Amino acid sequence: MATTMRPIRDTVPFDEAVARILEHTPPIERTERIGLDVAMGRVLAGSITSQSDVPPFDRAAMDGYAVVAEDTFGAGRYAPRSLTCVETVYTGAVPTRALASGQCSQIATGAPMPDGASAVVMVEETERDADTVRIFTPVYPGQHIGRKGADIGVGRAVLSAGTVLNPSRIGALAALGLLDVDVYAQPRVSVLSTGDEIVEPGRPLDPGQIYDINRFTLGSIIPLHGGTVSRHPTALDDLDALSDALDACLTDGDLVVFSGGSSVGERDLILDALTAKGEVLFHGIAVKPGKPTVFGRVGRTPVLGMPGYPTSCLSNAYLLLVPMLRHMARLPRHQPVTRTLPVGQRIVSTTGRHQFYTVRIENGLAVPAFKASGDITSMSQADGYIEIPAQTDLVEKGETVDVKLF
Amino acid sequence: MATTMRPIRDTVPFDEAVARILEHTPPIERTERIGLDVAMGRVLAGSITSQSDVPPFDRAAMDGYAVVAEDTFGAGRYAPRSLTCVETVYTGAVPTRALASGQCSQIATGAPMPDGASAVVMVEETERDADTVRIFTPVYPGQHIGRKGADIGVGRAVLSAGTVLNPSRIGALAALGLLDVDVYAQPRVSVLSTGDEIVEPGRPLDPGQIYDINRFTLGSIIPLHGGTVSRHPTALDDLDALSDALDACLTDGDLVVFSGGSSVGERDLILDALTAKGEVLFHGIAVKPGKPTVFGRVGRTPVLGMPGYPTSCLSNAYLLLVPMLRHMARLPRHQPVTRTLPVGQRIVSTTGRHQFYTVRIENGLAVPAFKASGDITSMSQADGYIEIPAQTDLVEKGETVDVKLF
Repeated sequence: MATTMRPIRDTVPFDEAVARILEHTPPIERTERIGLDVAMGRVLAGSITSQSDVPPFDRAAMDGYAVVAEDTFGAGRYAPRSLTCVETVYTGAVPTRALASGQCSQIATGAPMPDGASAVVMVEETERDADTVRIFTPVYPGQHIGRKGADIGVGRAVLSAGTVLNPSRIGALAALGLLDVDVYAQPRVSVLSTGDEIVEPGRPLDPGQIYDINRFTLGSIIPLHGGTVSRHPTALDDLDALSDALDACLTDGDLVVFSGGSSVGERDLILDALTAKGEVLFHGIAVKPGKPTVFGRVGRTPVLGMPGYPTSCLSNAYLLLVPMLRHMARLPRHQPVTRTLPVGQRIVSTTGRHQFYTVRIENGLAVPAFKASGDITSMSQADGYIEIPAQTDLVEKGETVDVKLF
Repeated sequence: MATTMRPIRDTVPFDEAVARILEHTPPIERTERIGLDVAMGRVLAGSITSQSDVPPFDRAAMDGYAVVAEDTFGAGRYAPRSLTCVETVYTGAVPTRALASGQCSQIATGAPMPDGASAVVMVEETERDADTVRIFTPVYPGQHIGRKGADIGVGRAVLSAGTVLNPSRIGALAALGLLDVDVYAQPRVSVLSTGDEIVEPGRPLDPGQIYDINRFTLGSIIPLHGGTVSRHPTALDDLDALSDALDACLTDGDLVVFSGGSSVGERDLILDALTAKGEVLFHGIAVKPGKPTVFGRVGRTPVLGMPGYPTSCLSNAYLLLVPMLRHMARLPRHQPVTRTLPVGQRIVSTTGRHQFYTVRIENGLAVPAFKASGDITSMSQADGYIEIPAQTDLVEKGETVDVKLF
């Protein structure tokens, strides 16, 4: 029996790996038109210029009385001005009476201002008796009026291409009367677990088999960062099977993520399948865990081969796949919620490797949650993670670290 | 014409409003079984106890050779031990040979350990010539082995009820072979805009009309905090219409959110509709903007009446609806991404009212983005907001504030 194992001898530094991944990951160009109802978090593909005024007419900004401002000059608590109310203007209605000096119209917030009126007196500053309204305060011209176009004027650039839509931006588009909007498509991520031992959950295990974990962890994280998941059946560790699986992934993926098959075993064949169809851009990263990671491309489609170990696969998803996917989706860099805390005990790290280290938060301290390599519980029981750079080999007890919360 | 406007004279302090809302908002009791594929962010309704061992068998943690550990004692770079390789054990396969002293089996990471083997020597520490393998390092019993059940043992409590699922927790459930999981249902939020002037986007405006904004802003924010949106058609400002709309909202909502109709105009009738069917718990909050907010309930269903102004409605969504919804969805308190920055200019606030203030981040400074009351662009162009407590009336230029990013 003559077999050859292929250890990873050269690794690329973590920062360089990220840079090389981003360099070879093209931002998505495909666009689509979607309803405003489902546009949250999406990225505008074109600039939006207003075709109308918001508000579309001069309107009352307060409940009260529309007045000719000059009629109120000199009014005070003990020197009210009396005006005659000629009409009530409800919101959604149209005034029928223009105001002359000495007249006012009762008006609701948001209702159109009558012609001739130049200000609104708040209801709290008035008293009414039949059609006579006493005004206890002066108002200046324009007071308590929302001017036509003051919020958004016709022809104004409202949102530029590349803007990520949030609730208030969606509100601004609704204010313009838009029902749908052109956005960049979300990258489709083909996710595939490889390995003869990998079985779908829900079936019994035969000896030597384990359940697929990676497609669930990857499938959970991808939609949070602008991607959609295209799921492919588990592939066996066989060059033909992997090659066929890669072809299938390439037909419907903007990005292909394999897990398993990129380590050093003789039967780890992702590297061969990728070399045959495209190019390998690096194999092996100076990161812990997650070293046996391969990155390449077929045509313009990036292919990321993740380690099979669930913790390594998931830590690399946080460190590599998230920035890659957000770059492709045209989203800004991820800003995890972070707590700066002292570490509860000394942490020894591996010099020369960028380390992903899970921690729990206990009594205001970041406490290592790491159990053993590959243990999913070391991540599922953690509150977050810290990153220890390659040049750091020790974090002393009490030193502060930035804990990125899961 | 005899009409009565009803100013809001008494307001509840902001903190008390939040406390009262939470007190009268019951956490959801309904549960449902969903696939692991769609379980991200959901809340476990029951505890999960492992029915199996993870890993399900002793397995190699490295590519290399399974050995009897004692055979390697004393091995070194210049004093290798020679062993005879009797088999190759691939991942997903089952060993057919038990090892005796002097023997080894080539083994891949994740493959089951042969009987008799007690450790794995990494491939990097070996050299092979036909069936003879030279071992250059000693290993201790158990080294580079993942023990059966070491990650998760049979009968172990894996995740407790109330846990929010994240990628690694979903991974832990997949490791157990689960396909679906019992979670709390997501609160259904009935969203309704009221007002005679409110028109659906996509149609032309008649005089005095404006487009509905609030259902889009609320509809964008609700799914981010564990709720689903049940949309209802815009209701006219008419007691019968509002009453019918409230009935419709109550039939399919765990929580009802109205916008508009809770201010002081004579035709603001939410208060009347709510009083007729249930109870008003408060009307008016010492918050700016967003004062004209009503909270009540019909039976056990909470009803939140938001101001019609889009900015007031949305700021109250951040300040009141988000904590309310997360409480109902059994999610932990929201942790917005926050930047602590000096303010770029003096900000004058209203004493006695908790203020929501939009800011842009410019050159590391928090700069006011507020334009005019109700202007949606003051929010859509902002990067985030600060909160100024009721007892603070001034934030001096250069003082630091916590900017919560949108």
